[in-house]
Amino acid sequence: MSTLAPPTAKEMFDLLREDLSGIELEFSREAASDVSAITDIAGYLREGGGKRIRPALLLLAAKSLGYSQSGVGTATARLGAVVEMIHTATLVHDDIIDEADTRRGRPSANTTWGNSKCVLAGDWLYMQAFRVALDERNFKILDLLISLTQQMVEGEMLQAEKLGCSIGEHEYYDLIYRKTACLFRVSMRLGAVLAGASEDSEHQLGDYGRSLGLAFQIVDDVLDLTASEETLGKPVASDLREGKATLAVIHSLERCTPAERTAIENVLTDRGFARTSHAEVLTILQRHGSIEYAMNAATGSAEAARKAIQNLPDSEYKRVLLWVPDFVVARDK
Amino acid sequence: MSTLAPPTAKEMFDLLREDLSGIELEFSREAASDVSAITDIAGYLREGGGKRIRPALLLLAAKSLGYSQSGVGTATARLGAVVEMIHTATLVHDDIIDEADTRRGRPSANTTWGNSKCVLAGDWLYMQAFRVALDERNFKILDLLISLTQQMVEGEMLQAEKLGCSIGEHEYYDLIYRKTACLFRVSMRLGAVLAGASEDSEHQLGDYGRSLGLAFQIVDDVLDLTASEETLGKPVASDLREGKATLAVIHSLERCTPAERTAIENVLTDRGFARTSHAEVLTILQRHGSIEYAMNAATGSAEAARKAIQNLPDSEYKRVLLWVPDFVVARDK
Repeated sequence: MSTLAPPTAKEMFDLLREDLSGIELEFSREAASDVSAITDIAGYLREGGGKRIRPALLLLAAKSLGYSQSGVGTATARLGAVVEMIHTATLVHDDIIDEADTRRGRPSANTTWGNSKCVLAGDWLYMQAFRVALDERNFKILDLLISLTQQMVEGEMLQAEKLGCSIGEHEYYDLIYRKTACLFRVSMRLGAVLAGASEDSEHQLGDYGRSLGLAFQIVDDVLDLTASEETLGKPVASDLREGKATLAVIHSLERCTPAERTAIENVLTDRGFARTSHAEVLTILQRHGSIEYAMNAATGSAEAARKAIQNLPDSEYKRVLLWVPDFVVARDK
Repeated sequence: MSTLAPPTAKEMFDLLREDLSGIELEFSREAASDVSAITDIAGYLREGGGKRIRPALLLLAAKSLGYSQSGVGTATARLGAVVEMIHTATLVHDDIIDEADTRRGRPSANTTWGNSKCVLAGDWLYMQAFRVALDERNFKILDLLISLTQQMVEGEMLQAEKLGCSIGEHEYYDLIYRKTACLFRVSMRLGAVLAGASEDSEHQLGDYGRSLGLAFQIVDDVLDLTASEETLGKPVASDLREGKATLAVIHSLERCTPAERTAIENVLTDRGFARTSHAEVLTILQRHGSIEYAMNAATGSAEAARKAIQNLPDSEYKRVLLWVPDFVVARDK
């Protein structure tokens, strides 16, 4: 493993600042349509922010392999905008499906514009992402993106079918791969493709993205169970209230007493805490070490991410890539 | 103009029989996912039928330019399935937006599976269409399809913004171009691309598709106003009940008395016939010759379609293409 010293968050931001603003510019330029309602909704979604992790991964992948162009108008800026547009399209359709009221601390787009217009805005964003990607005239990029979006949509459908049910770990990992890790993986692979990487390097970086994405989502799911609304900045226990069993819950369900099992299953089927409180669920999870189990799984996945890129040549970009998994696991929101 | 004798509907069907079943096979093969709910919804939509006009146009365009392959596994079969999948994806999202209860005489998919799953099934069908098209490894085909789908989605958004409002003819033509004529046009152009046509031929066939599509939609809109539910096989006056002003209505609104204008506008804003009956609207339209005006516009557009392909070499396919516009205008459902 590399012995490079870990960077600070500020160092990372400085390193990518110019490129991330290039991506932001590209996103705002490409998310404009002649139809004002589309531009309005796309603008609202874009301004809602988000951590831009996916474009940052694409940048880090390309740069860690020697891609030297920076800033506005580069292929990394365009494809960085593409992965963020796809992410945004999935969010706007997901919020319709989950009947979400808020997203990133603001009213969700469907609350403001209604479901109908948001279905169309999501459709448009998907297509605009493909259009921008198509301009690269690279079939491999298009293959990656089409396959990605289908896997994500299929994942949402599987999730919709499993609501209110207890699922196994295998199903959980499939769902979070499709929900999060698949796009992390493709973002890394796209960066590698732009840098002209070998198949081997592309797959190593893809494996990094996959493992990082799994770690990211496991931690997200744990925080949804354990964090306070104040720290998280959004409603907590939303997964349970939507009938979604996540890793810690699955772990407890496989080990707990019949009474505990009934208590948890009541939450999932009721999609609420009328019969079992949130605190009671947490007590059960603590009793069986399930939160710790999930966090250990995240740590293991973060370690797998670091290991996947051990053969990359040393660089400041590699240093950041090695640091990101720790950051993802240690965050409290 | 050509002096070829018009075919019968049976002749046309015999001519395209093998190719249309090749398309049907491709559609059923490609509309299958590992996720059963997607396969179920896609299968339900596919089995709902429809006239397969768009794939038929693609076939006729290719064959009229000498494309000689037939049946299963040809590029025309694959892209015929693609245009029908795109058409199907727009229908399933439109039915969510219009809160439609029925489609082609059956419960709409959203009634059966709910909006959430139908949003995802529509997303998946769009992506599957792009995936199949991507396999052709032809950027021009992808450019046509991406641009098409964006224009269609933008059109639905514009339509959603105009509900309950009176619009001008220019806006009406823009809406029906996006809703129908754009896909007719692209279907013809795709056929031309597969046949290796010159730019000129491709654009002539595209113009045919555009004019035919406009005629088709104008007639559809007239039938929605004038036909009986028994003949049409679906609820009539649905446009008025959804607050959509179509050509005959626009024509009357620009000519009628203030009282008549109020009567029509009440229907559009109420989205129903509480204050003005369907019969009263029809009386106003008849008084101003608006139905005849719209049918004349359709006939003119049908004639423009025929004229657009006058330079095509004579063939049985051209004979069919020359006949289709008349068939479209003369139909009663």
